[in-house]
Amino acid sequence: MVTTKSASKQDTKIALLETGMDIMLEKGYTNTGIQEILTALRVPKGSFYHYFDSKENYAAEIIKHYDQAYSANLIRTLRNPKETPVQRLRSYCQTSKENLEMRQCSKGCLIGNLSQEMSDQSELLRTELSTVITKWRDMFTSCIEEGQSVGEIRKSASAESLAEFFLSGWSGAVMRAKTLKNSEPMQTFIDLMFEQVMKP
Amino acid sequence: MVTTKSASKQDTKIALLETGMDIMLEKGYTNTGIQEILTALRVPKGSFYHYFDSKENYAAEIIKHYDQAYSANLIRTLRNPKETPVQRLRSYCQTSKENLEMRQCSKGCLIGNLSQEMSDQSELLRTELSTVITKWRDMFTSCIEEGQSVGEIRKSASAESLAEFFLSGWSGAVMRAKTLKNSEPMQTFIDLMFEQVMKP
Repeated sequence: MVTTKSASKQDTKIALLETGMDIMLEKGYTNTGIQEILTALRVPKGSFYHYFDSKENYAAEIIKHYDQAYSANLIRTLRNPKETPVQRLRSYCQTSKENLEMRQCSKGCLIGNLSQEMSDQSELLRTELSTVITKWRDMFTSCIEEGQSVGEIRKSASAESLAEFFLSGWSGAVMRAKTLKNSEPMQTFIDLMFEQVMKP
Repeated sequence: MVTTKSASKQDTKIALLETGMDIMLEKGYTNTGIQEILTALRVPKGSFYHYFDSKENYAAEIIKHYDQAYSANLIRTLRNPKETPVQRLRSYCQTSKENLEMRQCSKGCLIGNLSQEMSDQSELLRTELSTVITKWRDMFTSCIEEGQSVGEIRKSASAESLAEFFLSGWSGAVMRAKTLKNSEPMQTFIDLMFEQVMKP
């Protein structure tokens, strides 16, 4: 009984994180109402505050939860032994582009969205976002380093700079695609990044 | 008397736009309260609704107002006859980077911020933002075209693609600088964009 009860508590917490993540991805932090999430899940307010001290703390946990799934996916993509490092980077872009197109260029990336919205509003969230951004950049750096070592990627810039440039360009392209409701900025990024920047 | 009265009405509208612009740049759309602006300016609610139908309409006018000043500045920078096209693009980046550093990497660009926050929330604002983004891109395209024609910028990519890539990368770098509270992503963008992408 104890096991079942704690499993169900864990389920409630995860359901709160998942639903909050979906709504925050669509509406941003400020536009997300806790009550709306509680109503959707039929969870009483008291339970929510049992798991999370505040909306800010809830959002920080959502960022961690989003990062968990995203990082697992990044590891699969960027370390895929069946592809070369450049092929892996291209797969990442292609899959992300298709995902955004499937959603009619809406939503984008929770980390990018909250970065833009909350970096000046919450030091707690900014710190969490910063940690995730740095962690992802390091994963891209490793993949680019591997590409440099096998001669697939130019060596005239450091792997870390190329990764930073890659992620700046990509997040900007996603943002522009969301606004233009057209994935062309992402395709332009892919074309120029791989043909002009990465090529040795 | 009529002239004075209408001049003062115009002043009130501009004061509302300027103050709204400052607050929205810092806090975003949703976090900006109309009442806070009215209190700061000692403007009655009725006057506000005389000028603007709604908060959404007010934000659309703020975007236009921001664009007016920004575009005038872009024209001065990107058509400066005392500099070559590449020098002008570098001046744009350098000035923007110094501005962000002066503000401890906060605020960023209103168009970027609202794009990320509001593209999925308001079709009116998305359309306004889209218009501004396209207009700015066209200004960068002209400058890059000029750089290509004088042999300063590579011709293996179209000026329009390079402009799109430039602005995606730059807006992403600004966003990352805001989150990391460090302008390094902007410097990395400048270094790689000019050395690896633009160079013929």
